[in-house]
Amino acid sequence: MANDKKMVEQITSMDVDFAQWYTDICKKADLIDYSSVKGCMIIRPYGYAIWENIQNILDTRFKELGHENVYMPMFIPESLLQREKDHVAGFAPEVAWVTHGGSEKLTERLCVRPTSETLFCEHYANIIRSYRDLPKLYNQWCSVVRWEKTTRPFLRSREFLWQEGHTMHATKQEAVDETVQMLNVYADFHEKDLAIPVIKGRKTPSDKFAGAEDTYAIEALMHDGKSLQAATSHFFGDGFARAFDITYQTKENTLAYPFQTSWGCTTRMIGGIIMTHGDNNGLVLPPAVAPIQVVIIPVAAHKPGVIEKATELYDELKKSFRVKLDDSDNSPGWKYAEYEMKGVPLRIEIGPRDIENGQCVVVTRHNLEKAVVSLENLTETVSAKLTEVRDGMFEKALANRERRTYSCKTIDEINEALKAGDGFVKAMWCGEEECEDSVKEQTGIGSRCIPLEQEQIEDVCVCCGKRAKHMVVWARAY
Amino acid sequence: MANDKKMVEQITSMDVDFAQWYTDICKKADLIDYSSVKGCMIIRPYGYAIWENIQNILDTRFKELGHENVYMPMFIPESLLQREKDHVAGFAPEVAWVTHGGSEKLTERLCVRPTSETLFCEHYANIIRSYRDLPKLYNQWCSVVRWEKTTRPFLRSREFLWQEGHTMHATKQEAVDETVQMLNVYADFHEKDLAIPVIKGRKTPSDKFAGAEDTYAIEALMHDGKSLQAATSHFFGDGFARAFDITYQTKENTLAYPFQTSWGCTTRMIGGIIMTHGDNNGLVLPPAVAPIQVVIIPVAAHKPGVIEKATELYDELKKSFRVKLDDSDNSPGWKYAEYEMKGVPLRIEIGPRDIENGQCVVVTRHNLEKAVVSLENLTETVSAKLTEVRDGMFEKALANRERRTYSCKTIDEINEALKAGDGFVKAMWCGEEECEDSVKEQTGIGSRCIPLEQEQIEDVCVCCGKRAKHMVVWARAY
Repeated sequence: MANDKKMVEQITSMDVDFAQWYTDICKKADLIDYSSVKGCMIIRPYGYAIWENIQNILDTRFKELGHENVYMPMFIPESLLQREKDHVAGFAPEVAWVTHGGSEKLTERLCVRPTSETLFCEHYANIIRSYRDLPKLYNQWCSVVRWEKTTRPFLRSREFLWQEGHTMHATKQEAVDETVQMLNVYADFHEKDLAIPVIKGRKTPSDKFAGAEDTYAIEALMHDGKSLQAATSHFFGDGFARAFDITYQTKENTLAYPFQTSWGCTTRMIGGIIMTHGDNNGLVLPPAVAPIQVVIIPVAAHKPGVIEKATELYDELKKSFRVKLDDSDNSPGWKYAEYEMKGVPLRIEIGPRDIENGQCVVVTRHNLEKAVVSLENLTETVSAKLTEVRDGMFEKALANRERRTYSCKTIDEINEALKAGDGFVKAMWCGEEECEDSVKEQTGIGSRCIPLEQEQIEDVCVCCGKRAKHMVVWARAY
Repeated sequence: MANDKKMVEQITSMDVDFAQWYTDICKKADLIDYSSVKGCMIIRPYGYAIWENIQNILDTRFKELGHENVYMPMFIPESLLQREKDHVAGFAPEVAWVTHGGSEKLTERLCVRPTSETLFCEHYANIIRSYRDLPKLYNQWCSVVRWEKTTRPFLRSREFLWQEGHTMHATKQEAVDETVQMLNVYADFHEKDLAIPVIKGRKTPSDKFAGAEDTYAIEALMHDGKSLQAATSHFFGDGFARAFDITYQTKENTLAYPFQTSWGCTTRMIGGIIMTHGDNNGLVLPPAVAPIQVVIIPVAAHKPGVIEKATELYDELKKSFRVKLDDSDNSPGWKYAEYEMKGVPLRIEIGPRDIENGQCVVVTRHNLEKAVVSLENLTETVSAKLTEVRDGMFEKALANRERRTYSCKTIDEINEALKAGDGFVKAMWCGEEECEDSVKEQTGIGSRCIPLEQEQIEDVCVCCGKRAKHMVVWARAY
């Protein structure tokens, strides 16, 4: 590799300081910048383009499943937030309050939405009358605010971008099915498009969303062995419907409360991409969401015919891919380092000798492997390479997770296992919150979820020794 | 027309009460709903889909011209807002202030962004170093807040959706060119895609954006003869750059301030569509942004073969258009009224006799004309019809504007002309703010813009009789 050492040395090694390595990538790959607005981030063009690609893929899937986009106000009057008691208890401590409009004090203060269940419910009470109005399958792309004390780009910031689906259904079963369906959409998106293996599961009662009957989540293991909750899907039962007096006339002419779900994922996923795939050369992006999928770098560009040939390849490839030709006067070595830092999945190098031989060099970012390929059928070759890249990234991430997943039968086994480094611990649980807390106290890891795919590690709870109800995945988490 | 009278009667006639007619359409066409958040609106799926289509078209154009999307924080610290004195004077009286995060009082209050010049400038000061970093062509899609006293859906609400472009250039000329280029993008979009004729012009000094050297705008005449400022484009000179200490190293190795622009358009455009094209049957949507471009309505749907044929047409047309087949059990008459209310550009009626004759009925919403067309090459026919609809809508709107445009040489002529109803008044102006105010006082109409295409109505100012500098378009405005 002819990398420009000066540039690569700017990143802290991930083995030396993972947190600093993460922040370095966010800055050096031009994903974010800071501003005088504490706890918030500027998402720069390269970072925002990743988000746009995520949005495009998910929005298409949501719509294929019948969901429609809407836009709700960004403010919630305090009295509206208080309509569902568990909900307000969960969110009130971390909202930003608007108290003045211009120079006038408001008669009622407004919070900047931390989530929009209350607004959707108020609207649903207006527009749902009959079973013919159900289901309502709404989604919203917007920003939300939660007044966090400690913040990190993408992972935890006071403002973040997300989508929030809010649906209403005639029956409980339909709502449960929707909750699980959307969990599967998120899981599928993470595994196929982001190349991030995930565990699908239910949260324990202590970890449910404020106001939900059941919270489902997908959990992904980051490179450092910590877990990231990557998306959530909630089943609300009819609790909010009762609190907001949302009723509908059934086919049988009776009044009933509809059943509700909500589900969301956020710019946090970009943090998940960085911490799953990144390495000491920088970002590594999955092809499906990479702003640039292929970068073409002319070598010995001053030689006759090189720029022309590079442009010809560019013109061919741009019909099928997001491609960039970098014909600037920076050195090839500088460019290699630059696009490695930016995580571009494929790099094509083309110089005079390659042209003579009707070939070019293709370097895959995730493993930095070089291949010499024919210029004939280059579109097909690139397409196959991108599939190979996605698969290779997924396998690599999965291998990391498997290496760091420990099945444990006792607290001692957990503590022993964690000496090798953080990871997912599979262990049995009796279902009591006391034991959940006790495991955390004794080992430092908390329950992440009750996986939908259960295994019987042992018959009894890892903590109290009583009959176990579930296998739980435990980990330290972001 | 077999319209269901019950439904159509729900709208106030536009001739009786234009404001009420407007609000009725917003509600009855399912564009918006109200909530307990005063002055804000819920944009419902049908309204939001119009906005998504607007976004798609404009975003593609912006990107073709080299612009990149970013995301800035939604909050602005008070001290940052104050960095440019004209800017803060213009916006401070109408911003919403966040004073508390959770239960803690903030050390400095934050406003919810009314516009983001200050945030962009702070960021540009960080990332612009050399002439190689210029131009910076950034855009942001987001919501903004201005604490208006009197609000109306789409036209003026405390929160609205918009895009704001913010660009930085090495030379003044480049920045002026960008300002005009983006004005032309807006004008072109309005005329070609929204079928709304516009006048391009500069604002008079008293009407400029807070902090701008020059504000350009497009003005459209609504059906009631009032003007709507539909989009704006500002040239800032280097005023903000100086206030924010943004400098760059020139090719000649000196330090210089870059020149800046910003430009924006908002959900207000949806109000413009309603008031330009709507009629007493409801909304009339231009095909380019209509969520449903063609609705297919089976007639005598119980007869054998009708639903099958309608479905066949649907399957054919959906390859090229946004099309809906309404095979619900509502009556055809009810459906006609419903999709007229929703402004669907084309309606296809297909019944047993049509099928026998290998034809269908096509009704164009903007003029309610019926045509019998062959089922052969229906895609081509529909495509041609949609072009015809766009052209017909534009001509109709242009004819309304021309009928309501008056060239006046004196104040008396203005007052005489306005007796026929509101409209655009073209009259000469000396350039003095006193005369601008005086015209408004004496006639009730204000200056809308100094059109880029000037006419010489008279040699002297319509107000003071001194030598005229510009022809101004005057009108009452939204």
